[in-house]
Amino acid sequence: MAKTNPGRFFEDYRLGEVIDHAVPRTVGEGERALYHALYPARHALYSSDVFAAECGLEGSPLDDLAAFHVVFGKTVPDISLNAVANLGYAEGRWLRPVYPGDTLRSVSEVIGLKQNSNGKSGVVWVRTTGLNQMDEPVLSYVRWVMVRKNDTDAPAPETVVPDLKPALDAADLAVPEGLDFTGYDFALAGEAHRCGDYAVGEVIDHVDGVTIEEAEHMIATRLWQNTAKVHFDATFRPDGQRLIYGGHVISMARALSFNGLANAQMIAGLNGGAHANPCFAGLTVKAWSEVLDKAETPAPGVGAIRLRLVATSDGSVGELKGADGKYRPGVLLDLDYWALMPV
Amino acid sequence: MAKTNPGRFFEDYRLGEVIDHAVPRTVGEGERALYHALYPARHALYSSDVFAAECGLEGSPLDDLAAFHVVFGKTVPDISLNAVANLGYAEGRWLRPVYPGDTLRSVSEVIGLKQNSNGKSGVVWVRTTGLNQMDEPVLSYVRWVMVRKNDTDAPAPETVVPDLKPALDAADLAVPEGLDFTGYDFALAGEAHRCGDYAVGEVIDHVDGVTIEEAEHMIATRLWQNTAKVHFDATFRPDGQRLIYGGHVISMARALSFNGLANAQMIAGLNGGAHANPCFAGLTVKAWSEVLDKAETPAPGVGAIRLRLVATSDGSVGELKGADGKYRPGVLLDLDYWALMPV
Amino acid sequence: MAKTNPGRFFEDYRLGEVIDHAVPRTVGEGERALYHALYPARHALYSSDVFAAECGLEGSPLDDLAAFHVVFGKTVPDISLNAVANLGYAEGRWLRPVYPGDTLRSVSEVIGLKQNSNGKSGVVWVRTTGLNQMDEPVLSYVRWVMVRKNDTDAPAPETVVPDLKPALDAADLAVPEGLDFTGYDFALAGEAHRCGDYAVGEVIDHVDGVTIEEAEHMIATRLWQNTAKVHFDATFRPDGQRLIYGGHVISMARALSFNGLANAQMIAGLNGGAHANPCFAGLTVKAWSEVLDKAETPAPGVGAIRLRLVATSDGSVGELKGADGKYRPGVLLDLDYWALMPV
Repeated sequence: MAKTNPGRFFEDYRLGEVIDHAVPRTVGEGERALYHALYPARHALYSSDVFAAECGLEGSPLDDLAAFHVVFGKTVPDISLNAVANLGYAEGRWLRPVYPGDTLRSVSEVIGLKQNSNGKSGVVWVRTTGLNQMDEPVLSYVRWVMVRKNDTDAPAPETVVPDLKPALDAADLAVPEGLDFTGYDFALAGEAHRCGDYAVGEVIDHVDGVTIEEAEHMIATRLWQNTAKVHFDATFRPDGQRLIYGGHVISMARALSFNGLANAQMIAGLNGGAHANPCFAGLTVKAWSEVLDKAETPAPGVGAIRLRLVATSDGSVGELKGADGKYRPGVLLDLDYWALMPV
Repeated sequence: MAKTNPGRFFEDYRLGEVIDHAVPRTVGEGERALYHALYPARHALYSSDVFAAECGLEGSPLDDLAAFHVVFGKTVPDISLNAVANLGYAEGRWLRPVYPGDTLRSVSEVIGLKQNSNGKSGVVWVRTTGLNQMDEPVLSYVRWVMVRKNDTDAPAPETVVPDLKPALDAADLAVPEGLDFTGYDFALAGEAHRCGDYAVGEVIDHVDGVTIEEAEHMIATRLWQNTAKVHFDATFRPDGQRLIYGGHVISMARALSFNGLANAQMIAGLNGGAHANPCFAGLTVKAWSEVLDKAETPAPGVGAIRLRLVATSDGSVGELKGADGKYRPGVLLDLDYWALMPV
Repeated sequence: MAKTNPGRFFEDYRLGEVIDHAVPRTVGEGERALYHALYPARHALYSSDVFAAECGLEGSPLDDLAAFHVVFGKTVPDISLNAVANLGYAEGRWLRPVYPGDTLRSVSEVIGLKQNSNGKSGVVWVRTTGLNQMDEPVLSYVRWVMVRKNDTDAPAPETVVPDLKPALDAADLAVPEGLDFTGYDFALAGEAHRCGDYAVGEVIDHVDGVTIEEAEHMIATRLWQNTAKVHFDATFRPDGQRLIYGGHVISMARALSFNGLANAQMIAGLNGGAHANPCFAGLTVKAWSEVLDKAETPAPGVGAIRLRLVATSDGSVGELKGADGKYRPGVLLDLDYWALMPV
């Protein structure tokens, strides 16, 4: 058993440490097809090479969330194998589209550490960067997790809590080189609404729903080489349920949001996110969005829209938290992101 | 909620109107692999680039039904979101093989309208054409659906019922350029039977069966970007069942028909089809075929065979309708098509 | 029904006969992606084109077991359609990596026949070779199955039992041309253990587990065009269960073995294997390995490790057979293979 990876415990992390995550991955047409098979994804830029080329890209990239899942999946054996909870995300920036044939790997730097007062666990902040085969960054984000201590006698590290932006400014977003929405074909994209048609505070019910199957979330999660036991092994939890990878819910909700946000084409920034309640097979995921902000970008015809994306298991719309300030039980996900959209 | 697509109602269609359907789609090696993963497809022309090249094609095309599903899927948001029933197909012609890398989009023309006598719904006939990135038609078919009226006070349109062929003539079929079966390798194709070995009226029991899973039909249906709620959302129907996309049953039955019709390689024409009874997960789909006609084509060594393909949930063979003239409950599909086969 | 394949019976095989199996198959990026979606495969050589190139290959090959399944799947209609039992494997040699774009076909030679004393069935030994589009062998193995007689009056053939090696010597293994592990990146591969770090007799618990779903094993088995009814048709067995293709368990166990054997990159030889107990959906597959032997190869930095790979349904580790000499009920698979690993 000494040969298997026991994962890291809280006392194993050092501030400033850089972890090269294992198992680089070449993504291709197969991953693109599978993304469309697993999620009701219809954003035209990711569906058609021709549409993407007409928007100034070299072809249809891998879905931004697929890129995120691949980069994230590599970090699991080093960051979250002994994690008690995934606490949050911040400062997520998509820096460069990922195209079929690209090979991705991930690197994380430990940027924060704080032992919990019970002495049994602590919070670890990492900034993870996904790199392609040219060593160009494609994605960067901060994530923090609560991790158990293995040796509770290990001394507490100096507490360092990183200073993270509550939300990215539009100026922080990296617009892909060449992106140009001035000739954008709204008919082919599926909806007529441009950035200017949305009002801050507007809530959009995405209407459609998908009932979740075990086979589907496992196929998706394996595709990203995320091997956390709890997603695959029904004997792992006392209740015999497989906890669904939070990223599966993110992708499902984002794909459902096509209906009402078909032109929110590219994800450019992740401001924050909470997996409000666990998701299990049998639940029916629906989604709604709230417009949080709008902005311009330097790229021709390209605007930015900041959205709250909420996944639910009860079909509720517009209600996030109860009187106690906690997420309602029917809320699965509360995600805050920036998308690029025709102005 | 105003931002989401409410679908069209009967009164929203105009005779002669042309609808450009949204979300073009680039299909590739991934879609080809998934087709083989989802259906027991073994026709050699679609399995091997080498076999296809030896038959005069540039490589192995995407399965003809996959092309159909992609083209069909794009029409759902505009044609059948508020459809009460899918009533029929006619004059389906495969005009050009679809190869990995092609980008497909769909256009429909309204060719018939007839309000029902109850004033609450009507029948809409559309001729849908799938086009590739060169704007070349790859597929064309007529479909008619019953659609609800939203405003029952809306005036009835002039009744126009298109004059449709009960079946295509062999002369109507488009044989792919270069197709040549004179050097056809029957051993590699899997069976020795050529077109001349089948007799009109002959019934073939395809023997094999597949028990349907929710995950599989949803993966397939999403892959074609068909987003009709009823296929995915178990809370949508009062009985809590997800209605399986009729095209899933078509593809399953066609793939099963390899066993006995291994050389009916390419689908060239769709004469008609009825989804006789709904299909749900848990049913075991089997299939049988009846030879309806045979013909020659101008291409070297290439014959045409007209087949009735029947999918069942009860394993019955050769029995289609009861004494009342209605489909037997164990019949799921009754499809009438032309295939190209070595003479 | 005369048109469908009834399969071969014991009396239909002749010693020395060569069977060209039908339906060649082009494998590509889609098959590679699906392999990663269906199994928790993480061996870096099969995940990253860059990693594979740095090991001297032209790119990341299709997983060795995927190549095996494709070659094996083609033999099912001719070898095992009427098989009562799959009795064993021997002398399996991977001769050449399979790359996206290759087209595979299979040929089998009957090398042994032995009628059972009951006169109702017999054992058939075949040596199957997988060939690519250049007619180069990519894989070769011996398999023997018990097959029913259709005509119990058919005379027994002369008994010929082939002389098979209980295990390949390391010298029998074909190391892919150009393979070079001298610059092997252990950090990217995921573990630091090289061949020299393993001791003969060492047992490795691979820790992770996957609970099996019907949709997943059917998707996998269809992908290899293995159409044995028993895997797909829940009405086929009296107990209503679908028997899972033994190769699905092999691939699952091999993928799980990454955790502890991340550097046992390429499968080069199959010495033997037993599907000890049937596998059904709902079981949770775990795996352990035992190091049986180690050897050198002529390739730079490339060693060979002989492993027993055991899949279980009860999480047991290190226990293979009971006091009665039979496999314990929780053992699904006992596979003996050679892998190539950095020395």
